[in-house]
Amino acid sequence: MEPGFTLCIVGLGLMGGSFALALRQACQIGPAPDRRMLPARIVAVGRNAAVLSTAQAAGAVDAWTHDLAAGVAEAEVVILATPVRTTLRLLPEVGRHARAGALIMDLGSSKAEICAAMAALPEGLDPVGGHPMCGKEVSGFAAAEATLFAGRPFIICPLPRTTPTGLERALALVRATGARPLILDPVAHDWGVAAISHLPYMAAVALVNAVDAAGDSLPWSLASSGFRDTTRVAASDVEMMLDILLTNRAAVLEWMQRFSDQMDALHRALAESDEERLRALLSVARQRRSGLQWL
Amino acid sequence: MEPGFTLCIVGLGLMGGSFALALRQACQIGPAPDRRMLPARIVAVGRNAAVLSTAQAAGAVDAWTHDLAAGVAEAEVVILATPVRTTLRLLPEVGRHARAGALIMDLGSSKAEICAAMAALPEGLDPVGGHPMCGKEVSGFAAAEATLFAGRPFIICPLPRTTPTGLERALALVRATGARPLILDPVAHDWGVAAISHLPYMAAVALVNAVDAAGDSLPWSLASSGFRDTTRVAASDVEMMLDILLTNRAAVLEWMQRFSDQMDALHRALAESDEERLRALLSVARQRRSGLQWL
Repeated sequence: MEPGFTLCIVGLGLMGGSFALALRQACQIGPAPDRRMLPARIVAVGRNAAVLSTAQAAGAVDAWTHDLAAGVAEAEVVILATPVRTTLRLLPEVGRHARAGALIMDLGSSKAEICAAMAALPEGLDPVGGHPMCGKEVSGFAAAEATLFAGRPFIICPLPRTTPTGLERALALVRATGARPLILDPVAHDWGVAAISHLPYMAAVALVNAVDAAGDSLPWSLASSGFRDTTRVAASDVEMMLDILLTNRAAVLEWMQRFSDQMDALHRALAESDEERLRALLSVARQRRSGLQWL
Repeated sequence: MEPGFTLCIVGLGLMGGSFALALRQACQIGPAPDRRMLPARIVAVGRNAAVLSTAQAAGAVDAWTHDLAAGVAEAEVVILATPVRTTLRLLPEVGRHARAGALIMDLGSSKAEICAAMAALPEGLDPVGGHPMCGKEVSGFAAAEATLFAGRPFIICPLPRTTPTGLERALALVRATGARPLILDPVAHDWGVAAISHLPYMAAVALVNAVDAAGDSLPWSLASSGFRDTTRVAASDVEMMLDILLTNRAAVLEWMQRFSDQMDALHRALAESDEERLRALLSVARQRRSGLQWL
């Protein structure tokens, strides 16, 4: 790619905003990455003028527009940083307005449906799925940080039609944000993240809702660091999570069943005061969890 | 109580060690608490000579012994900081050797069985249940910290036989550690902590075990901050947790059922792609969890 290309970010929330800030930082203070791989200009497409103006004033983006067609038309790289089902809805319009050869990448947390929709984009476009494995229980540009992706896995799901150049571009952008790119099949991705992200979210929601449904203030008054950490992700943005769950239903339902089987085993061992069985189940978890030193 | 009293801590792990360090700090740099309420001398009873010597060298305790009878006999206050079932086993022996009028307190995470056992102590002793609401997924004196209790709730469960003086002593010690004392009935305590501590532990164990049982390395390679926090407590000490669960069975089983009902509701809404129902369930959790600012 020639130097001085334009990158368009659609949706300037936590993810899109952090992506813009991370690229800016890479351009300015990073370890001299290949400059041809970094955008000279970043344009944001969004709905909230106040947020977009703030981002521009902060130097995160050079320009912004409410007009998806206009923003996309001037960019060699388009990053869709909207909730998953918004991305699915916008992809056809992006396809109609994107420049020939443009790299189209997203930052959504489920990949199979998005990669399927990307496969239907017009010929000549270069789509690839993306998923930065990070996040916070807060949302919006105000929470965006240049270091959000630093050291985190960033899944890249190439399509059969993704060109080697497109993949190379995507990897360079991911590395510029400080993330560790990991290439993965979209279906394998969705199964894996259902286990370690979507299922824990469901469990956190159920923990909070179980206490809520009991209608007694006592448990809340006792909640301490264990409850705080175990339920942190239950405060995640609801619309974002709805999109993820509804576009990854089969895998999430499978993991909820696997989880339920484990809860049943624990319930049975405790109900029967089967100390040896209970010790065995708790010990597997302790050993496995203690071994995740890299987390 | 006259100044210069001796406090005996039985079990110098994370909790007992932190209790000793916190009292030491209160004596030295605290906001001038009533000195009569603080021990002049701290004696530890434990099994591991290396750990006990380290604690003495660090100034956490003044002396130590392997001999429970000897340690207890010289103390006006005895703090049982052992796993719950060890405390239940040791209480009769403590009762045989404790000085007349001695305050007997514990630091265990379930209270109904311990308070029942304390009720059977010989006349003339002054028992009270205690539970500092804090902890880490690590254990042992090496992990002990003077600030472990700072700002945390510290439940005190008085027995019908607890004297006003005994309760006052217990509250003074708790305040000296920097914790916020909260007086609670033992059965209410056990029900409340089952909801916000023992149930989340079971869920964390089941999350880790579900991934483990699937026998695939992919999910582990994707685990990020959400999985890390949601499962942190699964690394807790197994013997400690076994004691807690087995002495709080009924309440934990009740909360596991309440949790299972919530998981079922989520499963049903997702399986039926009932977006409105799913949104409602997720929104309750988000609102409730976001409101826990004090956590």
